[in-house]
Amino acid sequence: MNSVPLNDLSRLCIHTITTKPWSIEIAAKNYSSQGVSGITVWRDALSGRSIKQTGNMLRQHNLRVVSLCRGGFFPGKEPIKRQAAIDDNRRAIEEAFELGTRMIVLVCGADPAQSLEESRKQIHDGIAAILPDAENAGIKLAIEPLHPMYADTRSAINTLAQANDLAETLNSPWVGVAVDVYHLWWDPHLEDEIQRCGKNHNLLAFHVCDWKSPTVDLLYDRGLMGEGCIPIRKIRSWVEAAGFTGFIEAEIFSNEYWKQDQSDFLRNIITSYKKYV
Amino acid sequence: MNSVPLNDLSRLCIHTITTKPWSIEIAAKNYSSQGVSGITVWRDALSGRSIKQTGNMLRQHNLRVVSLCRGGFFPGKEPIKRQAAIDDNRRAIEEAFELGTRMIVLVCGADPAQSLEESRKQIHDGIAAILPDAENAGIKLAIEPLHPMYADTRSAINTLAQANDLAETLNSPWVGVAVDVYHLWWDPHLEDEIQRCGKNHNLLAFHVCDWKSPTVDLLYDRGLMGEGCIPIRKIRSWVEAAGFTGFIEAEIFSNEYWKQDQSDFLRNIITSYKKYV
Repeated sequence: MNSVPLNDLSRLCIHTITTKPWSIEIAAKNYSSQGVSGITVWRDALSGRSIKQTGNMLRQHNLRVVSLCRGGFFPGKEPIKRQAAIDDNRRAIEEAFELGTRMIVLVCGADPAQSLEESRKQIHDGIAAILPDAENAGIKLAIEPLHPMYADTRSAINTLAQANDLAETLNSPWVGVAVDVYHLWWDPHLEDEIQRCGKNHNLLAFHVCDWKSPTVDLLYDRGLMGEGCIPIRKIRSWVEAAGFTGFIEAEIFSNEYWKQDQSDFLRNIITSYKKYV
Repeated sequence: MNSVPLNDLSRLCIHTITTKPWSIEIAAKNYSSQGVSGITVWRDALSGRSIKQTGNMLRQHNLRVVSLCRGGFFPGKEPIKRQAAIDDNRRAIEEAFELGTRMIVLVCGADPAQSLEESRKQIHDGIAAILPDAENAGIKLAIEPLHPMYADTRSAINTLAQANDLAETLNSPWVGVAVDVYHLWWDPHLEDEIQRCGKNHNLLAFHVCDWKSPTVDLLYDRGLMGEGCIPIRKIRSWVEAAGFTGFIEAEIFSNEYWKQDQSDFLRNIITSYKKYV
């Protein structure tokens, strides 16, 4: 049975990249004035700023800082690249701590110069390497499986089953998974795997947008909820049946929407959220 | 252990769409003069021609007609659309018979206006409806799972596991699967599922090309074997370990390559085949 519509915005979080033309200060002011409750901060939005003060600014706007996007990109054929990734993930953990969020989303990475099996092993080892830092800082790491069309360079973890396997192997309260409908909607095992990560207390985040037909760009043509073919409300019902009560995060990369007036776009996000999520 | 390189062209088949700028007559002449052994015919290449005579022409060029591409596209929210698909698949079976090939590749279809589950049920029912016709004509139907990025409109069958399930449910010597590295290379269960369809005598076809990084178009940016990240020779070794000894079909959709001199492109296909397949 589908979940009921969400009539208030107490669970709506928006990713800063969704309104990329706005600075984080403008985004915070506008999200807040429209009643949005959470924000997920992309690291580029923090560039040139005091991270601590930015976190305070977000809280002054009554925004919960849901997560920092993104860590990961662990694989590399060259060891120096893998070490650089671990160093960068440690910086991300420091940034998340300063910002005052408790979660980092991991886009795990892949190197087309080596096999997916090798990349997967390096992802495991990379997360294991930073896990003590995450635990010390009190930051959870959410492994986000990415759509198979990103298996060449962005993630060798392409199904929720793989992310669940990895989280269970790492077996730490500081590691779990992020479910993004865009990446996973096609998977015939999605409901079962959502149940599985819920049962294991590994379901940390839920991201929404939609899949447009046609999709004209592999990266930057995500749809607003309701304008595509993803059964978002059905997937939300699975996520909630698995015990998830956290934020629902609108993460929309779109050349089309970034060209629009961002205030109009924000209002459309809220309308779509109430109607289709 | 990887398979050994293929030093002759006795197993190389090329899809007419790979050299789309050529008519089927020109393609046949040029494939044949370069020593290519097989051709898979896309239905558009037959437009305005006697299919029987075209089949004879291909055989006069010593080309084995490996398969007809493509049937399928069974789902539709409206019953009239589903019936039209069944009628069209029956025509495809007649065309395959006239052409003198023994196989049709099925791109199963999907309708974004309904759930994937509904589309999958309609795919099952569509294949079941045409199966007696296929059997009468002596034509095998190869279910080709498509990459998940095509789940909206092209196929609700997106993994080899799903195709194997469907073929086993239909349980007929006239139904099997087609393995295309472009659609399936990312799947962590690929080797197991190739073993499974081999064991069940359901492995009917093997298609190759490569995944370029970056890929700039969802449909028409396939790579020449060796210029991407797909472990083609490794997957061939799995396919051969599963008992497959049939044609290896180069199926490359590419705006870039279609712009090139097609004779140069054909020579590059042959070089890539020997070096990377």
